[in-house]
Amino acid sequence: MKLTKEQAQEIKDQQSQENITKRVTAPELEKILYEALPILDHGFIRVVDYMGNDTSIVQAARVSYGKGTKKVNTDAGLIKYLMRHWHSTPFEMCEIKYHVKLPIFIARQWIRHRTANVNEYSARYSILDKEFYLPAQENLAAQSQSNRQGRGDVLEGEQAKKVLKLLKTDAERTYSNYEEMLNERFDGSIIDKNEIGLARELARMNLTLNTYTQWYWKTDLLNLMNFLRLRADHHAQYEIRAYADAMLDTLKKWVPITYEAFMDYRVGGTEVSAKGKLIIKKLIKGEEVLMEDSGLSKREWNELMEAFNLKDKLI
Amino acid sequence: MKLTKEQAQEIKDQQSQENITKRVTAPELEKILYEALPILDHGFIRVVDYMGNDTSIVQAARVSYGKGTKKVNTDAGLIKYLMRHWHSTPFEMCEIKYHVKLPIFIARQWIRHRTANVNEYSARYSILDKEFYLPAQENLAAQSQSNRQGRGDVLEGEQAKKVLKLLKTDAERTYSNYEEMLNERFDGSIIDKNEIGLARELARMNLTLNTYTQWYWKTDLLNLMNFLRLRADHHAQYEIRAYADAMLDTLKKWVPITYEAFMDYRVGGTEVSAKGKLIIKKLIKGEEVLMEDSGLSKREWNELMEAFNLKDKLI
Amino acid sequence: MKLTKEQAQEIKDQQSQENITKRVTAPELEKILYEALPILDHGFIRVVDYMGNDTSIVQAARVSYGKGTKKVNTDAGLIKYLMRHWHSTPFEMCEIKYHVKLPIFIARQWIRHRTANVNEYSARYSILDKEFYLPAQENLAAQSQSNRQGRGDVLEGEQAKKVLKLLKTDAERTYSNYEEMLNERFDGSIIDKNEIGLARELARMNLTLNTYTQWYWKTDLLNLMNFLRLRADHHAQYEIRAYADAMLDTLKKWVPITYEAFMDYRVGGTEVSAKGKLIIKKLIKGEEVLMEDSGLSKREWNELMEAFNLKDKLI
Amino acid sequence: MKLTKEQAQEIKDQQSQENITKRVTAPELEKILYEALPILDHGFIRVVDYMGNDTSIVQAARVSYGKGTKKVNTDAGLIKYLMRHWHSTPFEMCEIKYHVKLPIFIARQWIRHRTANVNEYSARYSILDKEFYLPAQENLAAQSQSNRQGRGDVLEGEQAKKVLKLLKTDAERTYSNYEEMLNERFDGSIIDKNEIGLARELARMNLTLNTYTQWYWKTDLLNLMNFLRLRADHHAQYEIRAYADAMLDTLKKWVPITYEAFMDYRVGGTEVSAKGKLIIKKLIKGEEVLMEDSGLSKREWNELMEAFNLKDKLI
Repeated sequence: MKLTKEQAQEIKDQQSQENITKRVTAPELEKILYEALPILDHGFIRVVDYMGNDTSIVQAARVSYGKGTKKVNTDAGLIKYLMRHWHSTPFEMCEIKYHVKLPIFIARQWIRHRTANVNEYSARYSILDKEFYLPAQENLAAQSQSNRQGRGDVLEGEQAKKVLKLLKTDAERTYSNYEEMLNERFDGSIIDKNEIGLARELARMNLTLNTYTQWYWKTDLLNLMNFLRLRADHHAQYEIRAYADAMLDTLKKWVPITYEAFMDYRVGGTEVSAKGKLIIKKLIKGEEVLMEDSGLSKREWNELMEAFNLKDKLI
Repeated sequence: MKLTKEQAQEIKDQQSQENITKRVTAPELEKILYEALPILDHGFIRVVDYMGNDTSIVQAARVSYGKGTKKVNTDAGLIKYLMRHWHSTPFEMCEIKYHVKLPIFIARQWIRHRTANVNEYSARYSILDKEFYLPAQENLAAQSQSNRQGRGDVLEGEQAKKVLKLLKTDAERTYSNYEEMLNERFDGSIIDKNEIGLARELARMNLTLNTYTQWYWKTDLLNLMNFLRLRADHHAQYEIRAYADAMLDTLKKWVPITYEAFMDYRVGGTEVSAKGKLIIKKLIKGEEVLMEDSGLSKREWNELMEAFNLKDKLI
Repeated sequence: MKLTKEQAQEIKDQQSQENITKRVTAPELEKILYEALPILDHGFIRVVDYMGNDTSIVQAARVSYGKGTKKVNTDAGLIKYLMRHWHSTPFEMCEIKYHVKLPIFIARQWIRHRTANVNEYSARYSILDKEFYLPAQENLAAQSQSNRQGRGDVLEGEQAKKVLKLLKTDAERTYSNYEEMLNERFDGSIIDKNEIGLARELARMNLTLNTYTQWYWKTDLLNLMNFLRLRADHHAQYEIRAYADAMLDTLKKWVPITYEAFMDYRVGGTEVSAKGKLIIKKLIKGEEVLMEDSGLSKREWNELMEAFNLKDKLI
Repeated sequence: MKLTKEQAQEIKDQQSQENITKRVTAPELEKILYEALPILDHGFIRVVDYMGNDTSIVQAARVSYGKGTKKVNTDAGLIKYLMRHWHSTPFEMCEIKYHVKLPIFIARQWIRHRTANVNEYSARYSILDKEFYLPAQENLAAQSQSNRQGRGDVLEGEQAKKVLKLLKTDAERTYSNYEEMLNERFDGSIIDKNEIGLARELARMNLTLNTYTQWYWKTDLLNLMNFLRLRADHHAQYEIRAYADAMLDTLKKWVPITYEAFMDYRVGGTEVSAKGKLIIKKLIKGEEVLMEDSGLSKREWNELMEAFNLKDKLI
């Protein structure tokens, strides 16, 4: 991640603000406000604004006139109760806004979360930065042989080199031809003064999907957790998980009590189906259970056994 | 509007906060933060939190690293441009949260705006306050004779007295019977120690629709303006307009530049249909126009003439 | 539930349609299309339109050119997989529309589900029907002593009689005064020809919350299931559960494969937290577990034990 | 647009269905149901399902037991009234579903409309088709010199040839290297049996933004009109307008009365600000108006004059 001098200065200016407010604050989050936290090779996330903290959830749940909080203990109990019973509306009372720089193919996954507000850098209007995502060697995974949308082992040796070279060369050439068509370089210099360039809204189509874009992305706490539950999960693509993991850290700094409940009930928890419950009940009683009699498919059976770490029962 | 001593104290405590933040602030809005602004006979609105100000809109529209603002002039120009061309996403980057006390029949209109977050006081869980909306004499309007969902002249004399008496008596009796069924008074005292009351979730059905409820209501700036455009309009029911008007004042304190653009393009503006445009063009040329040839219905014709103050052309 | 002759005829007319379509159909649902299924004392639900069936989910998940289905077996497997892994977007590809008649206090719970489309009968415009919900004797529950938003035992004897009488009398009187203020009876007859009535938008505030209203309510299959998971749950208020239960039947007729997966994974399933998983693992191994060491609150402990039917471990 | 034999057959199978339904139908839309309507060089839209027609809007607005319609005349009047006064909820009662094939850079614009349901072809799971958008010569526009996000004149001669060649060569080479990295051709054949390919979720990042993708896209009538108002507008990028224009045709076949109202009030209409109204009023009175005194910016002034075709007043 490189910032231009100007960008670094703008961020510094924001960070040096000291405003007085009657609003509640999140002191740990304030410490990293505006900071560009590096993700992947050229990406970042920055928390640029927020509203509310753990007490806001309690306040809304109680529809109180004041802070709505009692003791830290009681507040934590209420937040855990709300999380456990899917009383989700109080979590919508907090809001957070990020500035994110990310590769376009990841932006396309991300944008599927519709309950958020987004302003993306416009490639109709401006020229995109000359930055592409190139995976680190250890993330250059082969196609999984068992899971059609998963990753297998890491590619090695010559094949890895070849892939990286192809990615790099293609991104650079298509970008260079993008400039050619625009008749303008990424730094704004004109290539041929006697020509007019192709419209930006057209030229951009020549870029590869690992080109970086950026946006402002704002969401409420409930929808942030929905996002993180899916995107920080080990089924998620590594590249979006890198963003989600960094956002989990900001969640912890922002609303530490909610974070604990979220990790316990959502991230670390599991769902058991009606049929799955019957099996667990039998296992607790020490009874024999067989996949064949369970009504579960092999895949489902294995998912259940893994959830409860019953490795000897995997089929 | 009456606040209990406790409530008044809780509000005072909130107002006495002086927190340091790196976030942008809205100084005029800070001045009235948490304050209960009286609406109707027992209602109020209180701004209890907000995120962003006019500069946040500019910042998001430019997807900038810093404040995104240039000069006040340029910023205002950009905000007006965004408003005029329905580039609405930057306005979603600001958020506001109200605590509102309002009669249930108004709450039912209000809740139809779905793009907001709400936590309402739960009458399954708690006993509702003993407060009912009784219209002031000057708002006791007769049914309009021309518009099936409008108001006509104000009722007067005996009829007005009768209506007010009925509203008051019925609200008080149903509330009193609500307490009777609960076996508990609004202040928490038990009526008959040998009996168990009816479940709160059932007893509440005996209340009339002018009983006050309250909620936390949070929305982004775009959806707030959508709400205000409809609810501060003269077609809106007076009682919800009373709330919308007070919220317009908070909008002005929060985002003054956006407020100006909103008043100019949305509230004070008008829409002209394709057929309407043909008529206006003719009028500008000084040509004769007749409703009969216009393709407009009488109602539509009159709406157009009124929009441009052409009273002599009303039919 | 009473329908006027006209209403019954209108429904009959709709049911007698035989249109040809190239769209997919849901034959079992067609059989009850438009039919008013009675709920509570005066309410009903009617399925008035729908789009898609189980095959539409499969088709969208595969983004196929044709039906997207293979064998019934494979389709069911895919639908179960989607449900289990929260791949929720294909379920949004089906849509259903209900006409519902329901008491206002239930309508207020229902409307909190925001991802639906609603058109409610307007009491600003028209006079509401003279119908109120009065609970059957066996649903006249006392307030729960242990759960602040739950029901306890059924009220009996004199107290039950008293409650029912109060509800009935208050609803009838407030309705009668509503007519009085409107200067118009529910059947449209004018009371006093020399007077103009109070505006409908005001008079309605005198009605009690058990007055029936009605609306068209349309939602997609995913959001219908979200609604049913919460509202057909035993924690939900009985009166809304009565509607949810009837809607579960329509779900079964509409998308039988999805219905099975929904009942298995959502309705009959349970969520286990990270801490809860540790306990279950120990129980399976035959180890001793104590609430004190579990990190669970008493309430949470009991919820977990109940989920797996471990009654001897309840505390 | 090329369909494989299999795809063409699947579409034919769908079209040959003749199902009986009690639901309302849209006969003109049925005629083109499932048909792939070609857009751009390889894209298409297909209407694959729908719910409701013009009568459904009327029915919901009246919350009626039957069809809710009276006479065609009255229905059209009601629909126009609803459109004019932004009574938008009845338009949400109709739903339509499209299967769309489109270039990725257009998909990225399209997806910004959040109130829709989407299932996109997964390039994590499958290999994308070998098809890229290459603009026709007459759409190869230069960057506008006056509008930073617009198009100017069409490129000609050598420059046009060069641009087209670059677009074609880059798309083909990056696609070919995509196959190379996958170790698999678009037709499923393996390139080197001794190697495992790069994970699909990674390899896709090498594709250019003019690669075609496809999705199922479903929305209600209100949100479809919001989409079309913005995307069939002359400010929209040509490539998305091509889709919007074809969808306008399907709108006309589906809900002809709504279509007329939409064209009159939204597409062909204009908005006039409060300040703009003052100017129009003066113009009607035959008074002199000058931009300098109007409070409008030059840009705004010109937009107003153009809206009313006052070409001699352009500045």
